[in-house]
Amino acid sequence: MECTRCRKKFRADKLIEDTLGIRVDGLSLEKMNEIIKKDRLSCPSCKNGLSAVKTFNLMFKTHVGPFEDENSIAYLRPETAQSIFVNFSLVRRSSRMKLPFGIAQIGRAFRNEISPRNFLMRCREFTQFEIEFFVHPERLDECPFFNEVAEHTVNVYSREHQKRGEPEKMKIAEAFESGIFQTKWHAYWLGAFHRFFIDLGLSPENLRLRQHLEDELSHYASDTWDIEYRFPFGWREIHGCANRTDFDLKQHMKESGADLCYFDEESGKVVPHVIEPSQGIDRLFLALLFEGYKKENGRTVLKIKPFLAPVKVGIFPLVNREGMPETARKIASELGEVFPVFYDESGSIGRRYRRMDEVGTPFCITVDGQTLEDGTVTVRERDSMKQVRVKISELKKYLSELGCNPP
Amino acid sequence: MECTRCRKKFRADKLIEDTLGIRVDGLSLEKMNEIIKKDRLSCPSCKNGLSAVKTFNLMFKTHVGPFEDENSIAYLRPETAQSIFVNFSLVRRSSRMKLPFGIAQIGRAFRNEISPRNFLMRCREFTQFEIEFFVHPERLDECPFFNEVAEHTVNVYSREHQKRGEPEKMKIAEAFESGIFQTKWHAYWLGAFHRFFIDLGLSPENLRLRQHLEDELSHYASDTWDIEYRFPFGWREIHGCANRTDFDLKQHMKESGADLCYFDEESGKVVPHVIEPSQGIDRLFLALLFEGYKKENGRTVLKIKPFLAPVKVGIFPLVNREGMPETARKIASELGEVFPVFYDESGSIGRRYRRMDEVGTPFCITVDGQTLEDGTVTVRERDSMKQVRVKISELKKYLSELGCNPP
Repeated sequence: MECTRCRKKFRADKLIEDTLGIRVDGLSLEKMNEIIKKDRLSCPSCKNGLSAVKTFNLMFKTHVGPFEDENSIAYLRPETAQSIFVNFSLVRRSSRMKLPFGIAQIGRAFRNEISPRNFLMRCREFTQFEIEFFVHPERLDECPFFNEVAEHTVNVYSREHQKRGEPEKMKIAEAFESGIFQTKWHAYWLGAFHRFFIDLGLSPENLRLRQHLEDELSHYASDTWDIEYRFPFGWREIHGCANRTDFDLKQHMKESGADLCYFDEESGKVVPHVIEPSQGIDRLFLALLFEGYKKENGRTVLKIKPFLAPVKVGIFPLVNREGMPETARKIASELGEVFPVFYDESGSIGRRYRRMDEVGTPFCITVDGQTLEDGTVTVRERDSMKQVRVKISELKKYLSELGCNPP
Repeated sequence: MECTRCRKKFRADKLIEDTLGIRVDGLSLEKMNEIIKKDRLSCPSCKNGLSAVKTFNLMFKTHVGPFEDENSIAYLRPETAQSIFVNFSLVRRSSRMKLPFGIAQIGRAFRNEISPRNFLMRCREFTQFEIEFFVHPERLDECPFFNEVAEHTVNVYSREHQKRGEPEKMKIAEAFESGIFQTKWHAYWLGAFHRFFIDLGLSPENLRLRQHLEDELSHYASDTWDIEYRFPFGWREIHGCANRTDFDLKQHMKESGADLCYFDEESGKVVPHVIEPSQGIDRLFLALLFEGYKKENGRTVLKIKPFLAPVKVGIFPLVNREGMPETARKIASELGEVFPVFYDESGSIGRRYRRMDEVGTPFCITVDGQTLEDGTVTVRERDSMKQVRVKISELKKYLSELGCNPP
């Protein structure tokens, strides 16, 4: 419903619960409207009257097929997870997989947010990937890859730490051994993704692992941790990792009657447990932009790692004569076979550097008078703005070694 | 509407037009129902009665935001093209582009097909990419890349050829010069995509360039060609390339009042013309599967080019003893850093080859008794089934040279 004066929107159930302490689970719209009228509930902000309660779809509803009726209703998926559970046995059989193993899915998800905001942070349409990682229910602490992350340091913000108000720097192994992470597989996945974000260029001090409080936990999860990033507008989740237990497979078994059990030679039929790393691609992308975007010494520069930069090399003739454009174009054409490059001959050389700084291009090559004499060019590095002279014939090797290729 | 007996579905407008010769553009549902009743139209298949005419949405309708009312209606996009036209000036200015240049877009598109069919051929949700290639209206025959495709041979199935019932093998340049392709840029893009499909592995004899007949042309196109593939269920479009002229930019200018003109130093303000290569990814994928899928000599094999194969190398120990699994696992781990590999030690060696054949794995490595003596393994090639002995230390180089890396 919305305030008839200030037009702010409220969830009727929350307002009734918070104001009157009445549980509204399962109450009809009529009943809620009655309560609001009887108890004269008003807008919490401006104390004016409220509109009637209306249904709000958290998902996007549509109709599929020739007729628009009750039988053709469909919803755009709000997450990618469930198709993995539905296909669990099919994937396991056709790929002859043994526990533990994961199934990953990437794609679009859609949520009817009342108020999309904060750039790419909360969108109605977004790209996510999810891994449902299936583990034998008695082997959640047997993770053969654990040593890859054991010594990795993270900021831990468990429930206890949240009470104290301060996260703590800990190694993944240390946090697991002290009982902060409930299972080794959960600890592993959190460590693996945290390390992945560091490899992409996020700073450790801008990341923390925050445990969901008891009352935040989804109905399907026994424990959930978010990897949060310090955005200019506050700490926000960029990755979630839930222990979904056997909730989903059991629910699908119950509702469909299909047997989604796993047969283990030692222990017989079991329902696997699931650790679920869930990644919003847009949010991660946004974090990388904020991490890299700097205004310093009068210039705007996007300091992202070279392998992430959309253009690796800007190539300029110092002036548009004396054969410089021809040489620069030749270099652009040769390097362009290996890296995305951008040739630019318009404006002052400083202005051309700035344009490349702004889009995160890590290297700029300038062809000058000396080039025509000795076959060298200047290579200017984005962050330090330092220039070195490199032979044209060695450019490919030089740039490859500086990280222009994916790791 | 549908037949009350056989449940077949029909387009009311088509049925009225075809049966009674009445144009129904703009007729209301009521009016159509009246006509059908008055003229006793019946189901063309079984001659039984027809249901009332109902609206059929060709697009998926939904509501965005808190309230489900007339103001919040939205549709899932049925193509990716229009966002490019809307953003034409923004992209041009921010990227400082000069004509000719293209803007490409890839993503999901959604169409409410009455009857999805033929595998991935007609789906309600599909992935497509479109290039809107903007050209100065007087320079549609100035294409600097034309020589890249001039000598490329294609099966041309123009309107004239369709009348005669036979396509004709022609070089792109030859077809352009004889006036079959109306503009050089159109000819270029058709040639470029045809060549791309050949590079991916489609056979020239399974491809043809078919021109839309006059009455097939979309309202926005002056000329359209499809690249068609010979599927087991017939020739079908896998790529469309339309000359959209200045239709879209002019329409957006008219409806929005925004100036989307391009300023050319010589000729002043112009509205660019557009050649649009439009690619359904799923259809191309389906064509590649049909092209590669063979049943021969009692085996099922997917003959796709190595760089397209999801797994490049299967790695097997001949028997599960004498250190063979250990050596094979070591090879799998080392090659796995460079190529997607699949380690398999279960079942007979023949059966393991067959599994890899079915998913298109181009090479299988087997560790046998001789491996432990001289450090060589057998490498078996999928299509010829020929085996050669290769030193373990030379496997990476050997497989790279055989095309496991993208070209």
